[in-house]
Amino acid sequence: MTRFYTSEARVGIMADALNAAREAAGRGEVPVGALVFGPEGQVLARASNEVEARHDPSAHAEILAMRAAAQALGSRSLLRCTLVVTLEPCPMCAAAMVHFRLGRVIYGAYDPKGGGVDHGPRIFEQAACLHRPEVIGGVCEQENAALLKKFFTTLRESGAS
Amino acid sequence: MTRFYTSEARVGIMADALNAAREAAGRGEVPVGALVFGPEGQVLARASNEVEARHDPSAHAEILAMRAAAQALGSRSLLRCTLVVTLEPCPMCAAAMVHFRLGRVIYGAYDPKGGGVDHGPRIFEQAACLHRPEVIGGVCEQENAALLKKFFTTLRESGAS
Repeated sequence: MTRFYTSEARVGIMADALNAAREAAGRGEVPVGALVFGPEGQVLARASNEVEARHDPSAHAEILAMRAAAQALGSRSLLRCTLVVTLEPCPMCAAAMVHFRLGRVIYGAYDPKGGGVDHGPRIFEQAACLHRPEVIGGVCEQENAALLKKFFTTLRESGAS
Repeated sequence: MTRFYTSEARVGIMADALNAAREAAGRGEVPVGALVFGPEGQVLARASNEVEARHDPSAHAEILAMRAAAQALGSRSLLRCTLVVTLEPCPMCAAAMVHFRLGRVIYGAYDPKGGGVDHGPRIFEQAACLHRPEVIGGVCEQENAALLKKFFTTLRESGAS
């Protein structure tokens, strides 16, 4: 999985996730996109938020991507897999990563209010946490944060929130 | 929702959840069962663990029940609903309860190792937590704990774990 170990490679991979996030924004979803790469670096799953479309508050990009990746692998464990996501995962998604035994998570914008990896309950740092993915945060942070900021500004201006 | 306010009523409701948990054990799943009751006390959803059946580590009884309840209500918010579950919810499920804006959670056995409500990250007590369901824990605790203990003892004796 050397492809994740240069900053240039991470930027390229994050661009794919950012495209998935933009597609979500186009559907009126909070723009978060995620990809899961398999042990050989192959794309196992690509997803973006579908909370509105599915009427399901748990349909975050990360959950959908991990579920699809496990199906694609035919395994409940994503131990040798990498998840790339545009925003710091929330506590629900971080805790799901523990259940899926995810190998590595690379994320974009930090989320001081809603994040659960480097903020809030810091799920992987809990004493009882049974599995800790490798974490690389803040990749293309400004670009990822700008997309979210733009989405919420537009939402407020339209009076929808 | 007065039906949840006597200990006798809670025991009756927990018995239903315990039956769902026993059904899960019969399918080789970790025995956890859950029900969601609507604003008028009607049963909106009944679910048990389907992690093995779906090859999906996020398919916990609580997530499945809340997702089904939201579909049944035609709403993403479970604000006036009550979830009854046989085991203290894990951090993933507790954090999902925040996203679903669940009104109340009543649970059975405490889970000092894997729980996320009264143990571990105590999700609802986090400063950044945007919604806090009412929590009633330890209902029919011994009965619920006994079912789980029996399941794991049998699993160990069969050499499957």
